[in-house]
Amino acid sequence: MHSIEYFQSIIQKKIDGFCRVNGDEEILQPVKYIIQLPAKRMRPVLALMSANLFADEVEKVIYPALALEVFHNFTLMHDDIMDNAPLRRGNATVHEKWNTNTAILSGDAMMIQAYQLMCKAPAHNLKDVLNVFSTTALEVCIGQERDMQFEKRNDVSVEEYMEMIRLKTSVLVAGAMKIGAIIAGASEKDQDLLYKFGENIGIAFQLWDDYLDAFGDQAKVGKQKGGDIIADKKTFLLLQAIALSNEEDKKIIEKYKGASQTKNAEKVEAVMSIFENLHLKDLLQTEMKSYYNAAMDALKQVAVAPERKLLLMQFAEGIMQRDR
Amino acid sequence: MHSIEYFQSIIQKKIDGFCRVNGDEEILQPVKYIIQLPAKRMRPVLALMSANLFADEVEKVIYPALALEVFHNFTLMHDDIMDNAPLRRGNATVHEKWNTNTAILSGDAMMIQAYQLMCKAPAHNLKDVLNVFSTTALEVCIGQERDMQFEKRNDVSVEEYMEMIRLKTSVLVAGAMKIGAIIAGASEKDQDLLYKFGENIGIAFQLWDDYLDAFGDQAKVGKQKGGDIIADKKTFLLLQAIALSNEEDKKIIEKYKGASQTKNAEKVEAVMSIFENLHLKDLLQTEMKSYYNAAMDALKQVAVAPERKLLLMQFAEGIMQRDR
Repeated sequence: MHSIEYFQSIIQKKIDGFCRVNGDEEILQPVKYIIQLPAKRMRPVLALMSANLFADEVEKVIYPALALEVFHNFTLMHDDIMDNAPLRRGNATVHEKWNTNTAILSGDAMMIQAYQLMCKAPAHNLKDVLNVFSTTALEVCIGQERDMQFEKRNDVSVEEYMEMIRLKTSVLVAGAMKIGAIIAGASEKDQDLLYKFGENIGIAFQLWDDYLDAFGDQAKVGKQKGGDIIADKKTFLLLQAIALSNEEDKKIIEKYKGASQTKNAEKVEAVMSIFENLHLKDLLQTEMKSYYNAAMDALKQVAVAPERKLLLMQFAEGIMQRDR
Repeated sequence: MHSIEYFQSIIQKKIDGFCRVNGDEEILQPVKYIIQLPAKRMRPVLALMSANLFADEVEKVIYPALALEVFHNFTLMHDDIMDNAPLRRGNATVHEKWNTNTAILSGDAMMIQAYQLMCKAPAHNLKDVLNVFSTTALEVCIGQERDMQFEKRNDVSVEEYMEMIRLKTSVLVAGAMKIGAIIAGASEKDQDLLYKFGENIGIAFQLWDDYLDAFGDQAKVGKQKGGDIIADKKTFLLLQAIALSNEEDKKIIEKYKGASQTKNAEKVEAVMSIFENLHLKDLLQTEMKSYYNAAMDALKQVAVAPERKLLLMQFAEGIMQRDR
């Protein structure tokens, strides 16, 4: 059985080659910059692992897998403009290091390059692979649009939040699984099961981010505890708190919205206390577990020998145990 | 023989259908808005006319042709952000009517939709068609990047300008010709000849824009005479003037750079007088004619009966005779 690190190293090598090919063209320098920031390479690694369920040789999946990573980083480049974010993975964002126009245009070039890489899929799979990719890509944009809308709205429901993170985060993970499966020759049924695996594990992954922000070990998470609370981010926890709390607690949440930085500690303490009174830690864990289980159920039904599924199971467990 | 209007009406019908399918999804409203602004539909019409050289039935080319128009309008949406343009075809630009974030994100969605439409090309042509499309699309981005760089530079050569307009404008026209030819089953030689036709006619088209700004009939052009001069736009005429003029004239050009609006009339008169002394009207006409001839030479060599080429010839002549 291969290791996750083995697949990561395949992808990193291809990223290095991709950057060399991009050469000195001005517009492609930000592309090289963002794709070389240290990252887990979750989407391409999952595409390779999905293919590896069905085929020992995953060579044909490598460029399409790289396409997914290039596309993902394109979305980060444009999202960072829209979110006015100064940092990405601890480094200056592209619009900060260069400027907004460059970040727009290099992002555009990057999306085209993602399609160029995806087009290296075997000819007989090309139409299917591109259909999954484009559908997914469009959903990711719709997810980002919802996320931006949510910032301006006061009536976002937990259901809307779940649909937003499904679109913004998990469909691309699901698409990665399906594209790997298609190229490796999986049956349509197995392709769909792996899409379902990715969709559910992607949501669980995002909910775990919400969990870590509020309940994680601060030293390990490596960022300010309650950063989402301070930023008034409409997470699963905050939306549940608003939905479940009494009028008094609702007023407290409302009171601290947009509060000055000097009140950060007080704000985190007050909101966390509401989370605790409502047992939201348990609720969130139950929710995550149900998505995790749905992912595992789908994987179990895939028609290959159980031992081939071990690495994916290990990966999924790892996601649910990570402390940052 | 079909007319240009016939092909335009085919495209307009498909655009109407495309807008209906896009429905109410928020992110796609700016897509519907920009694609429905009145336009010549030059790229998709050329794709259909190119195909029509080889095949009476151009049905299979319609969606890829529409993809070219969608892609072209995506570039307009993003270029307008970068150029800070308030108006597009006499209407508010997307970032003005909505906001910059929406224009970025809807543009991204629009590019994905262009790929979705291009993927409706027949399966056996798909890889070739997408290769031409992606290569072209990337070149268009590089052309826009050069154009933005030129604004900050004082040493742009005429050769660099010609290469910039080739990338920014004409390769997509060339790509449209080639994609039409590929799907209609043309030989590789004919595909390349039609690419060459489009590349040269595209450059001639852009030079004609430069010509009209300075020498056009103001009443017909419908915009301020010398608008490019007032905006200090580095056109073929201005760059030639800088390259060919004596020190005294160079100083005059330099003096008026960034001059206040109150000096507009004086500025246009002074710069136009330099253009006239250098006989730039003749030089530009000669240059255009040479690109026009190169386009016609390529078309002549295409291995189909001369009468099939009449409409394309008529189209090319029309481009060189338009007064706005």
